[in-house]
Amino acid sequence: MGGLENGATNNQNSSPTTTKPTKTSLSPDSMINLDQGDPTLFEPYWRKMGDKCTLVIEGCDLMSYFSDISNICWFLQPQLGDAIKRLHRVVGNAVTEDRHVVVGTGSTQLLMAALYALSSPADRHPVSLVAAAPFYSGYKDQAEFLRSGLYKWEGDAHTFEKDGPYIEVVTSPNNPDGAMREAVVNRGEGKLVYDLAYYWPQYTPITQPLDLDIMLFTFSKCTGHAGSRIGWALVKDKEVARKMTEYMQISSIGVSKESQIRAAKILGVLGEGCRTADSENFFEYSHSILKERWERLRNVVKNSRVFSLPKYPRDYCNFTGKYMDSSPAFAWLHSKEDIDWESRLREHKIIARSGERFGASPKYVRISMFSPPEAFNLFLERLSAIIDNTTGNVVT
Amino acid sequence: MGGLENGATNNQNSSPTTTKPTKTSLSPDSMINLDQGDPTLFEPYWRKMGDKCTLVIEGCDLMSYFSDISNICWFLQPQLGDAIKRLHRVVGNAVTEDRHVVVGTGSTQLLMAALYALSSPADRHPVSLVAAAPFYSGYKDQAEFLRSGLYKWEGDAHTFEKDGPYIEVVTSPNNPDGAMREAVVNRGEGKLVYDLAYYWPQYTPITQPLDLDIMLFTFSKCTGHAGSRIGWALVKDKEVARKMTEYMQISSIGVSKESQIRAAKILGVLGEGCRTADSENFFEYSHSILKERWERLRNVVKNSRVFSLPKYPRDYCNFTGKYMDSSPAFAWLHSKEDIDWESRLREHKIIARSGERFGASPKYVRISMFSPPEAFNLFLERLSAIIDNTTGNVVT
Repeated sequence: MGGLENGATNNQNSSPTTTKPTKTSLSPDSMINLDQGDPTLFEPYWRKMGDKCTLVIEGCDLMSYFSDISNICWFLQPQLGDAIKRLHRVVGNAVTEDRHVVVGTGSTQLLMAALYALSSPADRHPVSLVAAAPFYSGYKDQAEFLRSGLYKWEGDAHTFEKDGPYIEVVTSPNNPDGAMREAVVNRGEGKLVYDLAYYWPQYTPITQPLDLDIMLFTFSKCTGHAGSRIGWALVKDKEVARKMTEYMQISSIGVSKESQIRAAKILGVLGEGCRTADSENFFEYSHSILKERWERLRNVVKNSRVFSLPKYPRDYCNFTGKYMDSSPAFAWLHSKEDIDWESRLREHKIIARSGERFGASPKYVRISMFSPPEAFNLFLERLSAIIDNTTGNVVT
Repeated sequence: MGGLENGATNNQNSSPTTTKPTKTSLSPDSMINLDQGDPTLFEPYWRKMGDKCTLVIEGCDLMSYFSDISNICWFLQPQLGDAIKRLHRVVGNAVTEDRHVVVGTGSTQLLMAALYALSSPADRHPVSLVAAAPFYSGYKDQAEFLRSGLYKWEGDAHTFEKDGPYIEVVTSPNNPDGAMREAVVNRGEGKLVYDLAYYWPQYTPITQPLDLDIMLFTFSKCTGHAGSRIGWALVKDKEVARKMTEYMQISSIGVSKESQIRAAKILGVLGEGCRTADSENFFEYSHSILKERWERLRNVVKNSRVFSLPKYPRDYCNFTGKYMDSSPAFAWLHSKEDIDWESRLREHKIIARSGERFGASPKYVRISMFSPPEAFNLFLERLSAIIDNTTGNVVT
């Protein structure tokens, strides 16, 4: 799921205020915001695509609430459902046969919908919600902000021992640490929601088509179109799909049709580009950017006696037909020093997110690998300086 | 707020399954669905506008989560905020000076956001939520479906006597009955949310620019673009606007940018059309359709000894500069006979919504005035037949 949670408005150095992003202009005094995962760095690829992805909508189009009343998810535009299924078949990351596609306002709304669908108003106690630490910091906010009596955030799945029904969110690759994940609790009363926002070839080798009950994906992290707020769930059980749809109906009467048809078009172009060899496909392009950034970051960190980064197993990717390293959207930077690294980095004008927000130690910070190129360069310079000034356990 | 709630998937005869609506083809056996307020009947106007409302979006546009980080509602596209304020000034239905515009996935999401913003996690008891009966049937679902500990649906404002803080939703013109409304409870601890979805000149005379703390509007009912899922709130208090924005951030990380820029364009064309006299403006067009439907419906009902419709005061409309009758989006049909009229109409192949859903008697039914022309004609035929067959208090 997204890399944006509370604190978004602290964003001091990132994003366009208008439709067309403008170049950032950073000075030595500028704060660098690596807190959010705003994926605008993929924009040049889509610019290169020119008219192929251009969408034209007339004033009289898309006026009805309804898209396909024969579908459980009656507000899903059929062309989006088709494009989603085609893309998963091309990439080979998820089984789509006999699945219901439920569209949401980002996968954020779909997680809320899944909690609603998997809990029961008839139960006297709320169902427990857990995720293995370090977990995406948004889950806790989503579970707690309305003080719902249907579900209750219980934190780290590793230490969860409460009896009774529970929902475990499995984020794979994981946000914040990029690790491939499986369920941790594994008890009979458990229901699983897989957040697969980053299970795409630019981030991680695609080792198998996943075949799970509820799988969440988001347009934001697949292609970089975060502004469209389109997510989708592949759902095995009809009743769960119906209840997720009901959630969307009550909370927002469906999902933007403009965004849906735009996502259908762009996912279509993406899938087509993967099948033909006449140009670089999007996954190769975006992987090459992330891979280069990871190499540069690892080069800086390897000089440090204090910092370390996770290591990922090299794996065979069925999509590319090659052995590949993971290049996650976030770097999960660990320090040996027992200090609050979020605060320390902020003194060096780097905004990152403390491990504490993810149910981990403040010795960890999460750093977005999605920043504009200039900001990423400046981040590496500043991190190098911090490392150069570090002698033994003393950090300036 | 919307005319669509639970039961949307019962829709058996309304809407396009594809982008371009297709003509319905009704037979004497067809069910006529007048349950929902799907405003596709305004489509021909926007078709006539041709290229003026056409929107072109390139593949690289609108990728960021952010729209304007200097704004409290950081995901609001500035051109939408501007178009909203301009249109309210042209129509004269709401004060926009010194107001924060908060955009939502329909006004449905904004009502949820307002409940979140006006309640307090620190309070031991949930804040009471009330609306004067007959009230929009969606409010109860929205307040109850997540079993929130922040707010509690307490039903009819007329009979509300509980002590302590409360939120009253004032819907004006009211859904289902079209009446202009004011707050009912009027106690110091009360907070008010005005749902002004239908306070536009096609439905009711615009008698004054409303100047209230929280005013909700929706693109769906203003122009008929329900599929875009765009609503907006005009909010006086900065902290309330901030918390409403936070709700949107946690529940869906903002609102579709494609829908926002389309709404900006269409609201802009609408506002411009009201200022220039070279063509029929949208409000005149849509009012003339509704007015004609109301006249035909009143003509049918006046022959009945059983049915009646609300009467609305003729009032001077500042926007049109004329005295006008109200032509609400729904007809609130009352019957003297003490039977369940939703069921009885269903026997006659008319789907309407029982008064019970609105906190009223089942002697009332709400009938959408938004159906496709063929469906509306058939509805009048069937209602005439029911009335013709009615002698005294016996209804076939």
